[in-house]
Amino acid sequence: MLRLKLAIEYDGTGFRGWARQPGARTVEGELRRAVGELYGTFSELVVAGRTDTGVHALGNVVSVDVLGGPPAARAAEALNTVLPDDVAVRTVEEVPDGFHARFDAVSRSYRFRVWGRRERSVFEARRSLWWPRALDPVELNENAQSLIGAHDFRAFTPTETEHRTFVRTVESAQWAELGENVLAFEITADAFLRHMVRTLVGTMLGGRELAPLLAGRPRSEAGATAPPHGLYLLAVSYPDVSGDSPRTRP
Amino acid sequence: MLRLKLAIEYDGTGFRGWARQPGARTVEGELRRAVGELYGTFSELVVAGRTDTGVHALGNVVSVDVLGGPPAARAAEALNTVLPDDVAVRTVEEVPDGFHARFDAVSRSYRFRVWGRRERSVFEARRSLWWPRALDPVELNENAQSLIGAHDFRAFTPTETEHRTFVRTVESAQWAELGENVLAFEITADAFLRHMVRTLVGTMLGGRELAPLLAGRPRSEAGATAPPHGLYLLAVSYPDVSGDSPRTRP
Repeated sequence: MLRLKLAIEYDGTGFRGWARQPGARTVEGELRRAVGELYGTFSELVVAGRTDTGVHALGNVVSVDVLGGPPAARAAEALNTVLPDDVAVRTVEEVPDGFHARFDAVSRSYRFRVWGRRERSVFEARRSLWWPRALDPVELNENAQSLIGAHDFRAFTPTETEHRTFVRTVESAQWAELGENVLAFEITADAFLRHMVRTLVGTMLGGRELAPLLAGRPRSEAGATAPPHGLYLLAVSYPDVSGDSPRTRP
Repeated sequence: MLRLKLAIEYDGTGFRGWARQPGARTVEGELRRAVGELYGTFSELVVAGRTDTGVHALGNVVSVDVLGGPPAARAAEALNTVLPDDVAVRTVEEVPDGFHARFDAVSRSYRFRVWGRRERSVFEARRSLWWPRALDPVELNENAQSLIGAHDFRAFTPTETEHRTFVRTVESAQWAELGENVLAFEITADAFLRHMVRTLVGTMLGGRELAPLLAGRPRSEAGATAPPHGLYLLAVSYPDVSGDSPRTRP
Protein backbone atom coordinates (compact mmCIF):
# COMPACT_ATOMS: atom_id res chain seq x y z
CA MET A 1 0.00 0.00 0.00
CA LEU A 2 1.24 3.44 -0.99
CA ARG A 3 -0.16 6.74 0.32
CA LEU A 4 -0.01 9.46 -2.35
CA LYS A 5 -0.36 13.23 -1.97
CA LEU A 6 -1.64 14.86 -5.19
CA ALA A 7 -1.60 18.58 -5.96
CA ILE A 8 -4.35 19.19 -8.50
CA GLU A 9 -5.76 22.04 -10.56
CA TYR A 10 -9.16 22.32 -12.19
CA ASP A 11 -11.35 24.73 -14.08
CA GLY A 12 -14.53 24.72 -12.00
CA THR A 13 -16.80 25.80 -14.88
CA GLY A 14 -17.90 22.30 -15.85
CA PHE A 15 -18.22 20.81 -12.34
CA ARG A 16 -20.88 20.65 -9.64
CA GLY A 17 -18.05 21.28 -7.16
CA TRP A 18 -15.66 18.80 -5.56
CA ALA A 19 -17.88 16.34 -3.71
CA ARG A 20 -19.07 13.24 -5.51
CA GLN A 21 -22.85 13.02 -5.96
CA PRO A 22 -25.02 10.79 -8.11
CA GLY A 23 -25.90 12.14 -11.55
CA ALA A 24 -23.61 15.19 -11.36
CA ARG A 25 -20.17 15.78 -12.88
CA THR A 26 -17.82 16.52 -9.97
CA VAL A 27 -14.05 16.85 -9.57
CA GLU A 28 -13.97 14.00 -7.06
CA GLY A 29 -15.93 11.81 -9.46
CA GLU A 30 -13.51 12.43 -12.34
CA LEU A 31 -10.39 11.99 -10.20
CA ARG A 32 -11.75 8.80 -8.62
CA ARG A 33 -12.46 7.37 -12.06
CA ALA A 34 -8.92 8.21 -13.22
CA VAL A 35 -7.31 6.68 -10.12
CA GLY A 36 -9.48 3.59 -10.66
CA GLU A 37 -8.23 3.21 -14.22
CA LEU A 38 -4.59 3.10 -13.09
CA TYR A 39 -4.86 1.37 -9.71
CA GLY A 40 -7.06 -1.65 -9.17
CA THR A 41 -7.32 -1.05 -5.45
CA PHE A 42 -7.60 2.38 -3.86
CA SER A 43 -9.10 4.12 -0.84
CA GLU A 44 -11.60 6.98 -0.61
CA LEU A 45 -10.07 10.33 -1.66
CA VAL A 46 -9.36 12.83 1.12
CA VAL A 47 -9.31 16.47 -0.03
CA ALA A 48 -7.94 19.58 1.68
CA GLY A 49 -10.56 21.96 0.28
CA ARG A 50 -14.10 20.87 -0.70
CA THR A 51 -14.72 23.59 -3.28
CA ASP A 52 -18.25 24.66 -4.27
CA THR A 53 -19.83 24.53 -7.74
CA GLY A 54 -17.94 26.78 -10.18
CA VAL A 55 -14.92 27.41 -7.92
CA HIS A 56 -11.50 26.75 -9.49
CA ALA A 57 -8.29 25.34 -8.05
CA LEU A 58 -4.64 25.83 -8.87
CA GLY A 59 -3.35 23.78 -5.95
CA ASN A 60 -5.93 21.74 -4.08
CA VAL A 61 -4.43 18.70 -2.31
CA VAL A 62 -5.77 15.14 -2.21
CA SER A 63 -4.49 12.05 -0.40
CA VAL A 64 -5.29 8.49 -1.44
CA ASP A 65 -3.99 4.99 -0.74
CA VAL A 66 -3.25 2.84 -3.79
CA LEU A 67 -2.06 -0.66 -4.51
CA GLY A 68 -0.20 -1.65 -7.70
CA GLY A 69 -0.17 0.72 -10.70
CA PRO A 70 2.50 3.30 -11.54
CA PRO A 71 5.04 4.46 -8.92
CA ALA A 72 4.71 7.95 -7.42
CA ALA A 73 7.33 9.38 -9.80
CA ARG A 74 5.21 8.46 -12.87
CA ALA A 75 1.77 8.91 -11.37
CA ALA A 76 1.20 12.57 -12.39
CA GLU A 77 1.93 11.88 -16.03
CA ALA A 78 -0.13 8.69 -16.04
CA LEU A 79 -3.14 10.30 -14.34
CA ASN A 80 -3.05 13.27 -16.72
CA THR A 81 -3.44 10.96 -19.71
CA VAL A 82 -6.72 9.57 -18.33
CA LEU A 83 -8.15 12.80 -16.86
CA PRO A 84 -10.37 15.17 -18.87
CA ASP A 85 -9.01 18.53 -20.10
CA ASP A 86 -10.39 20.49 -17.17
CA VAL A 87 -8.61 18.60 -14.36
CA ALA A 88 -4.84 18.14 -14.15
CA VAL A 89 -2.48 16.65 -11.60
CA ARG A 90 0.47 18.97 -10.99
CA THR A 91 2.58 16.84 -8.67
CA VAL A 92 2.41 13.50 -6.86
CA GLU A 93 4.50 12.61 -3.81
CA GLU A 94 4.66 9.50 -1.70
CA VAL A 95 3.82 10.44 1.91
CA PRO A 96 3.93 8.61 5.27
CA ASP A 97 0.94 6.43 6.22
CA GLY A 98 -0.23 8.98 8.78
CA PHE A 99 -0.62 11.84 6.27
CA HIS A 100 -4.13 13.29 5.97
CA ALA A 101 -4.77 15.98 3.31
CA ARG A 102 -7.39 17.78 5.39
CA PHE A 103 -6.39 17.34 9.05
CA ASP A 104 -2.68 17.95 8.47
CA ALA A 105 -3.10 21.17 6.48
CA VAL A 106 -1.86 24.18 8.45
CA SER A 107 -3.04 26.87 6.04
CA ARG A 108 -4.96 27.46 2.82
CA SER A 109 -4.56 30.29 0.30
CA TYR A 110 -7.31 31.59 -1.97
CA ARG A 111 -7.37 34.13 -4.78
CA PHE A 112 -10.38 36.04 -6.09
CA ARG A 113 -10.00 37.60 -9.58
CA VAL A 114 -11.81 40.74 -10.70
CA TRP A 115 -11.97 41.90 -14.31
CA GLY A 116 -12.06 45.70 -14.20
CA ARG A 117 -12.45 46.84 -17.82
CA ARG A 118 -15.64 48.67 -18.76
CA GLU A 119 -16.26 46.09 -21.50
CA ARG A 120 -16.52 42.41 -20.63
CA SER A 121 -13.71 40.10 -21.66
CA VAL A 122 -14.32 36.88 -23.58
CA PHE A 123 -11.23 35.32 -22.01
CA GLU A 124 -12.14 36.24 -18.42
CA ALA A 125 -15.86 35.48 -18.74
CA ARG A 126 -15.75 32.30 -16.64
CA ARG A 127 -12.59 33.12 -14.71
CA SER A 128 -13.11 36.52 -13.07
CA LEU A 129 -15.94 38.61 -11.71
CA TRP A 130 -16.67 41.41 -14.20
CA TRP A 131 -16.72 44.69 -12.25
CA PRO A 132 -16.96 47.60 -14.71
CA ARG A 133 -17.10 50.32 -12.04
CA ALA A 134 -13.90 52.05 -10.87
CA LEU A 135 -11.97 50.34 -8.05
CA ASP A 136 -9.17 51.78 -5.94
CA PRO A 137 -6.64 49.02 -5.15
CA VAL A 138 -5.00 51.12 -2.42
CA GLU A 139 -8.31 51.63 -0.62
CA LEU A 140 -9.28 47.96 -1.03
CA ASN A 141 -5.92 46.93 0.32
CA GLU A 142 -6.22 49.15 3.38
CA ASN A 143 -9.61 47.66 4.15
CA ALA A 144 -8.19 44.13 3.77
CA GLN A 145 -5.49 44.79 6.37
CA SER A 146 -8.03 44.59 9.18
CA LEU A 147 -8.43 40.88 8.35
CA ILE A 148 -4.97 39.97 9.68
CA GLY A 149 -5.09 38.05 12.96
CA ALA A 150 -7.77 35.97 14.71
CA HIS A 151 -11.37 37.12 14.32
CA ASP A 152 -14.90 35.82 14.56
CA PHE A 153 -16.02 35.57 10.92
CA ARG A 154 -19.66 34.53 11.42
CA ALA A 155 -20.83 37.62 9.47
CA PHE A 156 -19.21 36.07 6.37
CA THR A 157 -20.87 32.66 6.21
CA PRO A 158 -24.52 31.63 5.74
CA THR A 159 -26.61 31.75 8.93
CA GLU A 160 -27.74 28.15 8.39
CA THR A 161 -24.37 26.53 9.00
CA GLU A 162 -22.57 23.30 9.79
CA HIS A 163 -19.68 25.17 11.42
CA ARG A 164 -19.40 25.04 15.20
CA THR A 165 -16.59 27.56 15.65
CA PHE A 166 -16.29 30.82 13.77
CA VAL A 167 -12.88 32.10 14.74
CA ARG A 168 -10.27 31.81 12.01
CA THR A 169 -6.73 33.20 11.91
CA VAL A 170 -5.69 35.17 8.84
CA GLU A 171 -1.99 35.22 8.09
CA SER A 172 -2.01 37.53 5.06
CA ALA A 173 -4.56 39.38 2.93
CA GLN A 174 -3.97 41.79 0.08
CA TRP A 175 -5.26 43.19 -3.17
CA ALA A 176 -2.82 43.44 -6.09
CA GLU A 177 -2.89 44.05 -9.83
CA LEU A 178 -2.42 40.69 -11.51
CA GLY A 179 -2.28 41.96 -15.09
CA GLU A 180 -3.92 44.48 -17.40
CA ASN A 181 -7.42 45.15 -16.02
CA VAL A 182 -7.16 42.23 -13.58
CA LEU A 183 -7.20 42.89 -9.85
CA ALA A 184 -6.91 40.02 -7.38
CA PHE A 185 -7.55 39.55 -3.69
CA GLU A 186 -5.34 36.92 -2.04
CA ILE A 187 -5.80 35.57 1.47
CA THR A 188 -4.08 32.91 3.57
CA ALA A 189 -5.61 31.57 6.79
CA ASP A 190 -5.51 28.44 8.95
CA ALA A 191 -8.97 27.52 7.66
CA PHE A 192 -12.04 29.14 6.10
CA LEU A 193 -15.78 29.16 6.72
CA ARG A 194 -18.14 28.30 3.87
CA HIS A 195 -18.44 31.25 1.38
CA MET A 196 -16.04 33.26 3.56
CA VAL A 197 -13.73 34.52 0.79
CA ARG A 198 -16.62 35.29 -1.55
CA THR A 199 -18.50 37.24 1.13
CA LEU A 200 -15.37 39.16 2.17
CA VAL A 201 -14.87 40.11 -1.50
CA GLY A 202 -18.52 41.09 -1.97
CA THR A 203 -18.36 43.26 1.15
CA MET A 204 -15.13 44.99 0.10
CA LEU A 205 -16.33 45.59 -3.48
CA GLY A 206 -19.52 47.05 -2.03
CA GLY A 207 -17.35 49.65 -0.28
CA ARG A 208 -18.11 48.49 3.28
CA GLU A 209 -15.53 48.59 6.06
CA LEU A 210 -14.58 45.14 7.33
CA ALA A 211 -13.24 46.03 10.80
CA PRO A 212 -16.62 46.54 12.56
CA LEU A 213 -17.88 43.21 11.16
CA LEU A 214 -15.05 41.06 12.53
CA ALA A 215 -16.42 40.61 16.03
CA GLY A 216 -19.15 38.06 15.42
CA ARG A 217 -21.74 40.33 13.80
CA PRO A 218 -24.74 38.66 12.10
CA ARG A 219 -24.61 37.72 8.39
CA SER A 220 -27.12 40.43 7.55
CA GLU A 221 -24.60 43.17 8.32
CA ALA A 222 -22.02 42.03 5.74
CA GLY A 223 -22.27 42.52 1.97
CA ALA A 224 -23.19 40.28 -0.96
CA THR A 225 -21.58 36.92 -1.69
CA ALA A 226 -19.41 37.32 -4.82
CA PRO A 227 -20.04 34.63 -7.47
CA PRO A 228 -17.95 31.43 -7.46
CA HIS A 229 -16.33 31.80 -10.90
CA GLY A 230 -13.80 34.38 -9.63
CA LEU A 231 -12.52 32.14 -6.82
CA TYR A 232 -9.40 29.91 -6.91
CA LEU A 233 -8.00 27.63 -4.22
CA LEU A 234 -4.33 28.51 -4.73
CA ALA A 235 -2.38 26.31 -2.33
CA VAL A 236 -2.50 24.27 0.85
CA SER A 237 0.44 24.18 3.28
CA TYR A 238 1.60 21.33 5.49
CA PRO A 239 4.19 21.16 8.25
CA ASP A 240 7.65 20.14 7.12
CA VAL A 241 7.58 16.36 7.50
CA SER A 242 11.34 15.96 7.24
CA GLY A 243 11.88 16.89 10.92
CA ASP A 244 10.80 14.57 13.70
CA SER A 245 8.56 16.97 15.62
CA PRO A 246 5.32 15.18 16.52
CA ARG A 247 2.27 16.14 14.43
CA THR A 248 -0.97 16.42 16.29
CA ARG A 249 -4.44 16.45 14.77
CA PRO A 250 -7.24 18.77 15.84
CA MET B 1 -25.86 56.12 -43.11
CA LEU B 2 -23.12 55.76 -40.51
CA ARG B 3 -19.82 53.92 -41.06
CA LEU B 4 -18.64 52.22 -37.86
CA LYS B 5 -15.21 50.80 -37.00
CA LEU B 6 -15.43 48.03 -34.39
CA ALA B 7 -12.52 46.58 -32.43
CA ILE B 8 -13.56 43.08 -31.38
CA GLU B 9 -12.18 40.20 -29.33
CA TYR B 10 -13.20 36.55 -29.44
CA ASP B 11 -12.25 33.18 -28.06
CA GLY B 12 -11.78 31.10 -31.22
CA THR B 13 -12.48 27.76 -29.52
CA GLY B 14 -16.15 27.59 -30.45
CA PHE B 15 -15.91 29.01 -33.98
CA ARG B 16 -15.20 27.69 -37.45
CA GLY B 17 -13.09 30.82 -37.99
CA TRP B 18 -14.19 34.28 -39.08
CA ALA B 19 -15.83 33.81 -42.46
CA ARG B 20 -19.57 33.15 -42.62
CA GLN B 21 -20.51 29.75 -44.04
CA PRO B 22 -23.77 27.82 -44.05
CA GLY B 23 -24.29 25.40 -41.17
CA ALA B 24 -21.20 26.47 -39.22
CA ARG B 25 -20.86 28.76 -36.21
CA THR B 26 -18.53 31.60 -37.24
CA VAL B 27 -17.51 34.95 -35.74
CA GLU B 28 -18.84 36.83 -38.76
CA GLY B 29 -22.16 34.99 -38.47
CA GLU B 30 -22.57 35.91 -34.79
CA LEU B 31 -21.54 39.54 -35.27
CA ARG B 32 -23.82 39.94 -38.28
CA ARG B 33 -26.74 38.57 -36.29
CA ALA B 34 -26.02 41.03 -33.44
CA VAL B 35 -25.70 44.01 -35.80
CA GLY B 36 -28.96 42.94 -37.43
CA GLU B 37 -30.74 42.93 -34.07
CA LEU B 38 -29.81 46.55 -33.38
CA TYR B 39 -29.81 48.06 -36.88
CA GLY B 40 -32.53 47.30 -39.37
CA THR B 41 -30.33 48.15 -42.35
CA PHE B 42 -26.64 47.34 -42.56
CA SER B 43 -23.95 46.49 -45.11
CA GLU B 44 -21.71 43.45 -45.43
CA LEU B 45 -19.03 43.32 -42.71
CA VAL B 46 -15.45 44.09 -43.79
CA VAL B 47 -12.79 42.54 -41.54
CA ALA B 48 -9.08 43.32 -41.23
CA GLY B 49 -8.00 39.75 -40.46
CA ARG B 50 -9.93 36.67 -41.63
CA THR B 51 -8.83 34.33 -38.84
CA ASP B 52 -8.87 30.54 -39.26
CA THR B 53 -10.78 28.00 -37.17
CA GLY B 54 -9.64 28.06 -33.55
CA VAL B 55 -7.62 31.29 -33.80
CA HIS B 56 -8.42 33.97 -31.18
CA ALA B 57 -8.51 37.76 -31.40
CA LEU B 58 -7.94 40.51 -28.89
CA GLY B 59 -8.18 43.33 -31.42
CA ASN B 60 -9.53 42.40 -34.83
CA VAL B 61 -11.15 45.30 -36.68
CA VAL B 62 -14.43 45.34 -38.60
CA SER B 63 -16.12 48.10 -40.58
CA VAL B 64 -19.84 48.21 -41.36
CA ASP B 65 -22.40 50.74 -42.56
CA VAL B 66 -25.57 51.03 -40.49
CA LEU B 67 -28.81 52.98 -40.57
CA GLY B 68 -30.84 53.83 -37.46
CA GLY B 69 -30.14 52.04 -34.17
CA PRO B 70 -27.89 53.24 -31.35
CA PRO B 71 -25.29 56.01 -31.95
CA ALA B 72 -21.60 55.10 -32.10
CA ALA B 73 -21.04 56.11 -28.47
CA ARG B 74 -23.56 53.50 -27.22
CA ALA B 75 -22.99 50.82 -29.85
CA ALA B 76 -20.34 48.77 -27.99
CA GLU B 77 -22.49 48.38 -24.91
CA ALA B 78 -25.59 47.63 -26.98
CA LEU B 79 -23.84 45.03 -29.15
CA ASN B 80 -22.32 43.31 -26.12
CA THR B 81 -25.76 42.69 -24.67
CA VAL B 82 -26.83 40.73 -27.77
CA LEU B 83 -23.52 38.94 -28.51
CA PRO B 84 -22.70 35.51 -27.05
CA ASP B 85 -20.12 35.15 -24.24
CA ASP B 86 -17.25 34.33 -26.59
CA VAL B 87 -17.36 37.50 -28.73
CA ALA B 88 -17.12 41.03 -27.35
CA VAL B 89 -16.92 44.47 -28.89
CA ARG B 90 -14.17 46.52 -27.23
CA THR B 91 -14.67 49.88 -28.91
CA VAL B 92 -16.80 51.45 -31.65
CA GLU B 93 -15.88 54.64 -33.52
CA GLU B 94 -17.62 56.54 -36.26
CA VAL B 95 -15.27 56.74 -39.28
CA PRO B 96 -15.31 58.63 -42.62
CA ASP B 97 -17.24 57.03 -45.51
CA GLY B 98 -14.00 56.06 -47.25
CA PHE B 99 -12.70 53.89 -44.37
CA HIS B 100 -12.07 50.22 -45.20
CA ALA B 101 -11.01 47.87 -42.37
CA ARG B 102 -8.87 45.67 -44.64
CA PHE B 103 -7.43 47.98 -47.34
CA ASP B 104 -6.63 50.84 -44.97
CA ALA B 105 -4.77 48.72 -42.40
CA VAL B 106 -1.05 49.51 -42.39
CA SER B 107 0.04 46.74 -40.02
CA ARG B 108 -1.20 43.75 -38.04
CA SER B 109 0.19 42.30 -34.82
CA TYR B 110 -0.12 38.68 -33.72
CA ARG B 111 0.82 36.83 -30.57
CA PHE B 112 1.45 33.10 -30.20
CA ARG B 113 1.29 31.71 -26.63
CA VAL B 114 3.28 28.69 -25.46
CA TRP B 115 2.62 26.91 -22.14
CA GLY B 116 5.99 25.62 -20.96
CA ARG B 117 5.29 23.65 -17.78
CA ARG B 118 5.98 19.93 -17.82
CA GLU B 119 2.38 19.27 -16.78
CA ARG B 120 -0.48 20.55 -18.90
CA SER B 121 -2.57 23.42 -17.55
CA VAL B 122 -6.35 23.27 -17.39
CA PHE B 123 -6.56 27.05 -17.81
CA GLU B 124 -4.24 27.19 -20.84
CA ALA B 125 -5.60 24.07 -22.56
CA ARG B 126 -7.42 25.94 -25.35
CA ARG B 127 -5.35 29.12 -25.17
CA SER B 128 -1.71 28.10 -25.57
CA LEU B 129 0.35 25.41 -27.24
CA TRP B 130 1.56 22.99 -24.55
CA TRP B 131 5.32 22.54 -25.01
CA PRO B 132 6.71 20.52 -22.10
CA ARG B 133 10.29 20.43 -23.38
CA ALA B 134 12.83 23.07 -22.30
CA LEU B 135 12.89 26.31 -24.33
CA ASP B 136 15.53 29.02 -24.28
CA PRO B 137 13.85 32.43 -24.73
CA VAL B 138 17.17 34.13 -25.50
CA GLU B 139 17.95 31.69 -28.29
CA LEU B 140 14.41 31.90 -29.68
CA ASN B 141 14.61 35.66 -29.62
CA GLU B 142 17.92 35.73 -31.48
CA ASN B 143 16.44 33.51 -34.17
CA ALA B 144 13.38 35.78 -34.46
CA GLN B 145 15.55 38.85 -35.12
CA SER B 146 16.29 37.66 -38.65
CA LEU B 147 12.60 38.24 -39.46
CA ILE B 148 12.91 42.03 -39.29
CA GLY B 149 12.71 43.69 -42.70
CA ALA B 150 11.30 42.65 -46.08
CA HIS B 151 11.59 38.93 -46.99
CA ASP B 152 10.03 36.35 -49.27
CA PHE B 153 7.98 34.20 -46.87
CA ARG B 154 6.78 31.50 -49.30
CA ALA B 155 8.42 28.80 -47.15
CA PHE B 156 5.88 29.66 -44.41
CA THR B 157 2.57 29.25 -46.25
CA PRO B 158 0.91 26.22 -47.87
CA THR B 159 2.16 25.47 -51.40
CA GLU B 160 -1.39 25.47 -52.72
CA THR B 161 -2.06 29.15 -52.25
CA GLU B 162 -4.25 32.08 -53.18
CA HIS B 163 -1.45 34.56 -52.58
CA ARG B 164 0.21 36.16 -55.60
CA THR B 165 3.03 37.97 -53.81
CA PHE B 166 5.09 36.50 -50.99
CA VAL B 167 7.16 39.44 -49.79
CA ARG B 168 6.04 40.86 -46.45
CA THR B 169 7.74 43.49 -44.30
CA VAL B 170 8.22 42.68 -40.63
CA GLU B 171 8.44 45.66 -38.29
CA SER B 172 9.09 43.82 -35.02
CA ALA B 173 9.38 40.24 -33.79
CA GLN B 174 10.28 38.98 -30.32
CA TRP B 175 9.82 36.25 -27.77
CA ALA B 176 9.07 37.30 -24.19
CA GLU B 177 7.87 35.74 -20.94
CA LEU B 178 4.25 36.68 -20.51
CA GLY B 179 3.77 35.12 -17.09
CA GLU B 180 4.67 32.06 -15.04
CA ASN B 181 5.36 29.24 -17.54
CA VAL B 182 3.97 31.28 -20.44
CA LEU B 183 6.23 32.33 -23.30
CA ALA B 184 4.88 34.40 -26.18
CA PHE B 185 6.04 35.27 -29.66
CA GLU B 186 4.83 38.64 -30.94
CA ILE B 187 5.18 39.89 -34.48
CA THR B 188 4.06 43.01 -36.36
CA ALA B 189 4.13 43.22 -40.17
CA ASP B 190 2.38 45.08 -42.96
CA ALA B 191 0.47 41.90 -43.82
CA PHE B 192 0.73 38.13 -43.37
CA LEU B 193 0.49 35.05 -45.57
CA ARG B 194 -1.93 32.29 -44.61
CA HIS B 195 -0.52 30.19 -41.68
CA MET B 196 2.59 32.39 -41.65
CA VAL B 197 2.79 33.05 -37.91
CA ARG B 198 1.96 29.43 -37.04
CA THR B 199 4.62 28.09 -39.39
CA LEU B 200 7.23 30.57 -38.15
CA VAL B 201 6.48 29.41 -34.59
CA GLY B 202 6.59 25.72 -35.52
CA THR B 203 9.93 26.24 -37.24
CA MET B 204 11.46 28.13 -34.32
CA LEU B 205 10.17 25.64 -31.71
CA GLY B 206 11.66 22.87 -33.83
CA GLY B 207 15.06 24.52 -33.37
CA ARG B 208 15.55 25.47 -37.05
CA GLU B 209 17.29 28.67 -38.11
CA LEU B 210 14.97 31.09 -39.91
CA ALA B 211 17.53 33.17 -41.84
CA PRO B 212 18.27 30.65 -44.65
CA LEU B 213 14.52 30.15 -45.23
CA LEU B 214 13.68 33.82 -45.81
CA ALA B 215 14.67 33.98 -49.48
CA GLY B 216 11.75 32.21 -51.12
CA ARG B 217 12.63 28.62 -50.17
CA PRO B 218 9.94 25.95 -50.72
CA ARG B 219 7.46 25.08 -47.95
CA SER B 220 9.10 21.68 -47.47
CA GLU B 221 12.22 23.27 -46.00
CA ALA B 222 10.42 25.01 -43.11
CA GLY B 223 9.07 23.31 -39.97
CA ALA B 224 5.65 22.22 -38.76
CA THR B 225 2.60 24.49 -38.59
CA ALA B 226 1.85 25.16 -34.92
CA PRO B 227 -1.82 24.57 -33.96
CA PRO B 228 -4.31 27.45 -34.14
CA HIS B 229 -5.33 27.55 -30.47
CA GLY B 230 -2.12 29.39 -29.45
CA LEU B 231 -2.61 32.23 -31.95
CA TYR B 232 -4.14 35.68 -31.24
CA LEU B 233 -4.72 38.59 -33.61
CA LEU B 234 -3.64 41.33 -31.21
CA ALA B 235 -4.17 44.61 -33.05
CA VAL B 236 -4.54 46.29 -36.43
CA SER B 237 -3.08 49.72 -37.13
CA TYR B 238 -4.39 52.46 -39.40
CA PRO B 239 -2.89 55.75 -40.54
CA ASP B 240 -3.80 58.73 -38.44
CA VAL B 241 -6.95 60.05 -40.12
CA SER B 242 -6.85 63.41 -38.37
CA GLY B 243 -4.28 64.83 -40.82
CA ASP B 244 -5.18 65.56 -44.45
CA SER B 245 -2.52 63.48 -46.16
CA PRO B 246 -4.13 61.53 -49.02
CA ARG B 247 -4.68 57.81 -48.36
CA THR B 248 -4.13 55.44 -51.23
CA ARG B 249 -5.33 51.87 -51.47
CA PRO B 250 -3.26 49.00 -52.81
